[in-house]
Amino acid sequence: MIFEQIESEGLAHYSYFIGAGGAAFVVDPRRDVDVYLALAAEHGVGITHIFETHRNEDYCTGALELAGKTGAEILHGSALDFAFGRPVKEGDVVGVGPLEVRVIETPGHTDESISLALAEAGHDGTPFMVFTGDALFAGDVGRTDFFKDRLEEMAGKLYDSLHTKILTLDDGVIVCPAHGAGSVCGGAISARPLTTVGHEKRTNPLLQRSRTDFIAAKIAEHHPIPPYFATMERYNLTGPPPLGEAPPMRPMTADALEKAAGRGATLVDLRGPSAFAGGHVPGSLNIWQTGISAYLGYYAGYDRPIILIDDAAPAPRNAETQARRLGFDTIDGYLGGGMRAWYRSGRPIGRCGTCSVHEVDLAAEGQFVLDVRETATRLAVGAIPGSHSIPVEEIAGRIREVPRFKKILVYCNTGYKGSLAASVLLRNGYQDVTNILGGMSAWIEAGREIRKETGKEALPAV
Amino acid sequence: MIFEQIESEGLAHYSYFIGAGGAAFVVDPRRDVDVYLALAAEHGVGITHIFETHRNEDYCTGALELAGKTGAEILHGSALDFAFGRPVKEGDVVGVGPLEVRVIETPGHTDESISLALAEAGHDGTPFMVFTGDALFAGDVGRTDFFKDRLEEMAGKLYDSLHTKILTLDDGVIVCPAHGAGSVCGGAISARPLTTVGHEKRTNPLLQRSRTDFIAAKIAEHHPIPPYFATMERYNLTGPPPLGEAPPMRPMTADALEKAAGRGATLVDLRGPSAFAGGHVPGSLNIWQTGISAYLGYYAGYDRPIILIDDAAPAPRNAETQARRLGFDTIDGYLGGGMRAWYRSGRPIGRCGTCSVHEVDLAAEGQFVLDVRETATRLAVGAIPGSHSIPVEEIAGRIREVPRFKKILVYCNTGYKGSLAASVLLRNGYQDVTNILGGMSAWIEAGREIRKETGKEALPAV
Amino acid sequence: MIFEQIESEGLAHYSYFIGAGGAAFVVDPRRDVDVYLALAAEHGVGITHIFETHRNEDYCTGALELAGKTGAEILHGSALDFAFGRPVKEGDVVGVGPLEVRVIETPGHTDESISLALAEAGHDGTPFMVFTGDALFAGDVGRTDFFKDRLEEMAGKLYDSLHTKILTLDDGVIVCPAHGAGSVCGGAISARPLTTVGHEKRTNPLLQRSRTDFIAAKIAEHHPIPPYFATMERYNLTGPPPLGEAPPMRPMTADALEKAAGRGATLVDLRGPSAFAGGHVPGSLNIWQTGISAYLGYYAGYDRPIILIDDAAPAPRNAETQARRLGFDTIDGYLGGGMRAWYRSGRPIGRCGTCSVHEVDLAAEGQFVLDVRETATRLAVGAIPGSHSIPVEEIAGRIREVPRFKKILVYCNTGYKGSLAASVLLRNGYQDVTNILGGMSAWIEAGREIRKETGKEALPAV
Amino acid sequence: MIFEQIESEGLAHYSYFIGAGGAAFVVDPRRDVDVYLALAAEHGVGITHIFETHRNEDYCTGALELAGKTGAEILHGSALDFAFGRPVKEGDVVGVGPLEVRVIETPGHTDESISLALAEAGHDGTPFMVFTGDALFAGDVGRTDFFKDRLEEMAGKLYDSLHTKILTLDDGVIVCPAHGAGSVCGGAISARPLTTVGHEKRTNPLLQRSRTDFIAAKIAEHHPIPPYFATMERYNLTGPPPLGEAPPMRPMTADALEKAAGRGATLVDLRGPSAFAGGHVPGSLNIWQTGISAYLGYYAGYDRPIILIDDAAPAPRNAETQARRLGFDTIDGYLGGGMRAWYRSGRPIGRCGTCSVHEVDLAAEGQFVLDVRETATRLAVGAIPGSHSIPVEEIAGRIREVPRFKKILVYCNTGYKGSLAASVLLRNGYQDVTNILGGMSAWIEAGREIRKETGKEALPAV
Repeated sequence: MIFEQIESEGLAHYSYFIGAGGAAFVVDPRRDVDVYLALAAEHGVGITHIFETHRNEDYCTGALELAGKTGAEILHGSALDFAFGRPVKEGDVVGVGPLEVRVIETPGHTDESISLALAEAGHDGTPFMVFTGDALFAGDVGRTDFFKDRLEEMAGKLYDSLHTKILTLDDGVIVCPAHGAGSVCGGAISARPLTTVGHEKRTNPLLQRSRTDFIAAKIAEHHPIPPYFATMERYNLTGPPPLGEAPPMRPMTADALEKAAGRGATLVDLRGPSAFAGGHVPGSLNIWQTGISAYLGYYAGYDRPIILIDDAAPAPRNAETQARRLGFDTIDGYLGGGMRAWYRSGRPIGRCGTCSVHEVDLAAEGQFVLDVRETATRLAVGAIPGSHSIPVEEIAGRIREVPRFKKILVYCNTGYKGSLAASVLLRNGYQDVTNILGGMSAWIEAGREIRKETGKEALPAV
Repeated sequence: MIFEQIESEGLAHYSYFIGAGGAAFVVDPRRDVDVYLALAAEHGVGITHIFETHRNEDYCTGALELAGKTGAEILHGSALDFAFGRPVKEGDVVGVGPLEVRVIETPGHTDESISLALAEAGHDGTPFMVFTGDALFAGDVGRTDFFKDRLEEMAGKLYDSLHTKILTLDDGVIVCPAHGAGSVCGGAISARPLTTVGHEKRTNPLLQRSRTDFIAAKIAEHHPIPPYFATMERYNLTGPPPLGEAPPMRPMTADALEKAAGRGATLVDLRGPSAFAGGHVPGSLNIWQTGISAYLGYYAGYDRPIILIDDAAPAPRNAETQARRLGFDTIDGYLGGGMRAWYRSGRPIGRCGTCSVHEVDLAAEGQFVLDVRETATRLAVGAIPGSHSIPVEEIAGRIREVPRFKKILVYCNTGYKGSLAASVLLRNGYQDVTNILGGMSAWIEAGREIRKETGKEALPAV
Repeated sequence: MIFEQIESEGLAHYSYFIGAGGAAFVVDPRRDVDVYLALAAEHGVGITHIFETHRNEDYCTGALELAGKTGAEILHGSALDFAFGRPVKEGDVVGVGPLEVRVIETPGHTDESISLALAEAGHDGTPFMVFTGDALFAGDVGRTDFFKDRLEEMAGKLYDSLHTKILTLDDGVIVCPAHGAGSVCGGAISARPLTTVGHEKRTNPLLQRSRTDFIAAKIAEHHPIPPYFATMERYNLTGPPPLGEAPPMRPMTADALEKAAGRGATLVDLRGPSAFAGGHVPGSLNIWQTGISAYLGYYAGYDRPIILIDDAAPAPRNAETQARRLGFDTIDGYLGGGMRAWYRSGRPIGRCGTCSVHEVDLAAEGQFVLDVRETATRLAVGAIPGSHSIPVEEIAGRIREVPRFKKILVYCNTGYKGSLAASVLLRNGYQDVTNILGGMSAWIEAGREIRKETGKEALPAV
Repeated sequence: MIFEQIESEGLAHYSYFIGAGGAAFVVDPRRDVDVYLALAAEHGVGITHIFETHRNEDYCTGALELAGKTGAEILHGSALDFAFGRPVKEGDVVGVGPLEVRVIETPGHTDESISLALAEAGHDGTPFMVFTGDALFAGDVGRTDFFKDRLEEMAGKLYDSLHTKILTLDDGVIVCPAHGAGSVCGGAISARPLTTVGHEKRTNPLLQRSRTDFIAAKIAEHHPIPPYFATMERYNLTGPPPLGEAPPMRPMTADALEKAAGRGATLVDLRGPSAFAGGHVPGSLNIWQTGISAYLGYYAGYDRPIILIDDAAPAPRNAETQARRLGFDTIDGYLGGGMRAWYRSGRPIGRCGTCSVHEVDLAAEGQFVLDVRETATRLAVGAIPGSHSIPVEEIAGRIREVPRFKKILVYCNTGYKGSLAASVLLRNGYQDVTNILGGMSAWIEAGREIRKETGKEALPAV
């Protein structure tokens, strides 16, 4: 049997390629489907089925493109009216070579969510593996906050799907979720890439709760909803544009980049926070390479060109791929030759300040300490005394909370989101912005004072 | 967490690379350790520990070489006096970054066999994964036949290791065995690459038996013991020669190959059965590429040069790698330019016959039908009426059972082992040898008569 | 400067990727353009220009697809009315970054053929390299036989292009031709991948001749014109279908393959001659993997599905790629699991005979020895006494020259074209066909008698 | 024929792999020989000969290691007493398959320098290619400054080698040099990767000079001699330690790195200048990744551990490889997790200033503008008015020329060497150091005033 878990880093998304007896199926394919085609060719098997556990919100599905290239049938839940594929229902069994895939309807994250139980031939359908999509993760469960007017209903549905469906499978069934640690689709997904029904039953904190408590906890959760989700939902209902037709990025000169920026292009600097601080293209956003999946969707629009900026000459293909997974097809180009080309061109250079935690003087006058971490982290870990909280996703919309004429000290957990926040402030005309490198991690390591919020009850860090 | 199951094809051997928090450990590394070093570099982690679940018999360990290149500590069971590494005992816990590895002594396959339970930080040592070495496989258990005078004892030990140790772990613990389907270390290992305690408890036929029945079944099993196992056992006790020092294969001319053969070199033809049949270097053995791991150890010696023959020009590196995993460091070279070079050289060409199952006339005179499948398969599946059974591993030693002056019709399951058997017969001077392409599979598909042995009770196909 | 010569093996076609200062151009891109896109991304340069030295006959151009993906401009000679790109004329100079490309009209192979002289900045246009397309090769010159009614005219044009244009460049100019040894676009191209004006002037036999002698020699040449050339010419004038839209091959079962063959699909066995001889799917053509580019165009049609058959399980992607370069987009699939799957299915198996040169008894009765080498080779090297000549490309059309009820002994240089010929004979109902493995090479090595044709003057082996 | 030019980037070193007829030779192999072994295996050829055009000074030879792994014979010039290999003399001819390699003694760069003329079979030894080592480059010739007391003699020898040996070959002979643009072994090597005798005769400025002028020009040249050259010379005379035995780098924690630095380890920050400026490990040297080959040899010693620091988590293998090519085998490790780990650890962070050319106020008080470009570039291009010149290679030794209590503005061509110089100053206790990003290139682009030295005659920019 061929079993491949394909991780899309940044998204922390898992898709799966399972093959046996010359046939194969794919669960939740990502938009760039070459990886599945290569596996099929390497093993000499045909992809006959594609399962979508649900309409994904955080990336473009590759199901249609993969189906077009393989002739595979697309199968998804029946509670949503997809423009493609065939709906399946509870108990439907699909044979793939000698394997049997049984459909389990597991609504909650969305209405049409399904899980897929996999059994080998000769086991009377007894599954040894289940693909749970966004219903059950390692150490966490799926979000239930997409329908603002149905929060309680959806949380209840998820509870029921978990307790009356997935958890009734044998403890020894291996659980293959659609996301791993770091995904925006969960709050506190564990680092183990695979898990089991039994292990989750025993250790997953949300599975220890009563139905009432579970619903309450889910309602209390607060997850970011990046603006690009709306486009993903539309794409994944009707089918996104084929990726095969998107032209690859092209290098641009410093001059062309400057002109494009003048016409409204979004400049994205892919380097780390100290590189951005030491010198950058004025007006650029600093989203480090592995942060593209998580943060580009907040700051880029589908109707504006995107230009990528990196340190070295090769085309930043990894960042391009991440952007395309989010459906961004307006990547006009990248700075040819890297930042060196900008420096050599004799153009202005932006900078921001950096400091270590030792250099922060909380008693200093005229400064404003800005915490851009998620609220839950702030509550759970504590914060620099006197710091003001605006999660990095919300900076642009809440910029008026940041005083114009003070020295702004930004921090996050490590310094990357801090640098993104700094870049947003600089774009908005702030002059004196300093990023605390190492952020809260360094603050703690250095033994500096931590303040936990009082008066307000800390939420569970889910 | 980084979790990589590395399959050594042919051997159907699994090793594991597990990393977290900047550190990593490897379980049962194979001799060519580049794969682990590459994973460590890719993820930027250091390999700090190497676990050997037991002294392996079927391949050279890479533990010493990997330890030399990484500074990692080697750990193995204490019931055998290894010349390297540190012995560990029941209950010992080894921290690797944020992970905890707990030692479980699971003798039976060998005395020093251990299993390794893996727990994440913050789980109070509750494991979510166990590395079972050759104790427990998917659908099968380890062999217990290495100590001919302790068959009952070892089978009993394995039963106890399974039932009092491994199966007492939670049902939801993922089982990572050392071998998959096709390994000579098990009889009927299932195709699923991962399994769980619960799934095995429920579906593994050997785990359904009482202790007495289990022991009886294990004693009744009949597994091949390739002669190279003795060398592996010696190597793996004291440490094999470092692979890094072995010179790579070199191409040889037809002339040089002929001379080397004259001096006793073993010629191994890596092509499929019909290519061998249509034309080969006289005297060569036909072990197809994916069969090297399983069959070279029967026919090659550590003191004789080996020369590989393939169809095309590139060096047959995959076969070379397989041979080195078995400790064969006397691979003198390969036929440069492939079989084309031999043909062009105007030298004699060996051939053997082929036929389809339709062309077999069981009523014909003067023929001898030879079944070279394993005995268990013959008993379970049935055989061509009137065929004589000599498993391919035993042909050389039982060649006198094959009549000299008859037309020999050889068959196996598909035609590959049949071709190896044919090549052994040809080397021994047999003139009229025909390989039934498709073997028993084709025989059954074509609806021809199958004879099951009677009088003798068919053993379970374990 | 980036200089990459990209060889398309089988076709022995060279395309070139040249970059400097952030820009790059490609000369004569092949249909699968990923290699150029990858080079551009790796070096962080943009492809700005694509040159076509002429309308190629032996493969599909990738110019349009590459232009579509990069925005590059396509440039070609003005003597043919292409449906795309921009015509350039003698003396036109195109700047690519700091490089200068000057157009030299060099008709002869075709009317619109151009060569391209490359100069670095600061060298006053003095070229150091010239791309000669099919005008000048290492040790040979282009074919001039495509216009049957203009043979003398085209040969004269080529002479003039060579002597008044290319050879007037400095001796030290590096010559980058469009083809290397083995191409059907030349007769005797030398093995050196690069050459120079001076070296060709001194050593190329055709450049030593007077205009009259040159024309006579060119007229006397006899080159195969595979039937697919007509399609290539049409495609390359108007633009071939985009490769990006062609679905990849899929595996087929033995049953599906048999049915497709029944409906007229062309089965192509990619294995070597002894594998084909030992067992094959009845009715299949034997075109070994590296022979696809040269021979598929004789035996496959654009309106019939093609199915590929190989030994092992992975999809035969190399053969697929070669076929697509010839414009074959009807590759329906490949035999999933390789020949093993056919054997196991219990279906009939085709075979042919093989023999070594030592086994050929020229005095035997009832046999017909068939030489399938090119005529020029037969004349230059000599032949097996009494053998009948039909070049492999012409077998199908001249099959009545082969007697039905004799034993047919086929030979070529080595055995591969012999096996293709044998497969054609078998498809046409011949029963007793034997391929002499090693062919004329082995015959000579074995010291057997060679007969040179007399009465008929041997042509120069051009 | 297989022709591969293998570029070792950073060193701008070219080695060559040439194969035909099943055999191959390598010219000037680098220390990491896997690339040659992979080519040999891919093409199924044996490496039979290794040529050293001379004892190289700028990298470790891989000849011995490659010979050990292939059985190839090492051949080199006879005017130096190597501890390995076989000396060859003028006119010696070595056959490699069907190829002929003729030795041409071409002293000048060193006494034992040889060139190698390559001819195909059937060309009466007429070469079509010559490997010129460090005698002749594209647009330049080799250095002749290694023997300080024989400057005139060596320059004369080189002149004679060029004019009486290499340039007497046909103009059409392709020249394959040992170095390309950017090498420290030449001053102004052209960007074209290949050239010819004729093109060099016509365009190479040094070949236009009379013997007297040539010698004068060569004596006037000023090339850096990195201190590591002495070790390379020793290694390459007797054989360097085998690379195969060097353990790969391991990740280190911030804590371990700090301790190692305290014990004298050299910390090398591989990031670009703005990243270094924004935040770095105090005391680290900033040698950007592609600068390792050129600059590590000035600042690292063979007796002190080296620790590499990069931005991201994967091991910086490219930098490690470059360092090993220079013989540095004391690379203790790299910062695990990249700079992020340092930041998170709450340790002090070093910084330096950056500015654009627009921000430089030459009239400001208390500043010192330091030009760290090579002298020849300064003279040829001009400089920032009032700037003081110390080439980056000489900073450490001439640090007293830099005033302690001024603001130091450093610049080079682009900003990379400027950052290295800044890092050296910071290590030496300078507090106020600013790197002008974009350096002289930006200065010129911005149209700021350039001062050319007068009174002192500008040397030719060789």
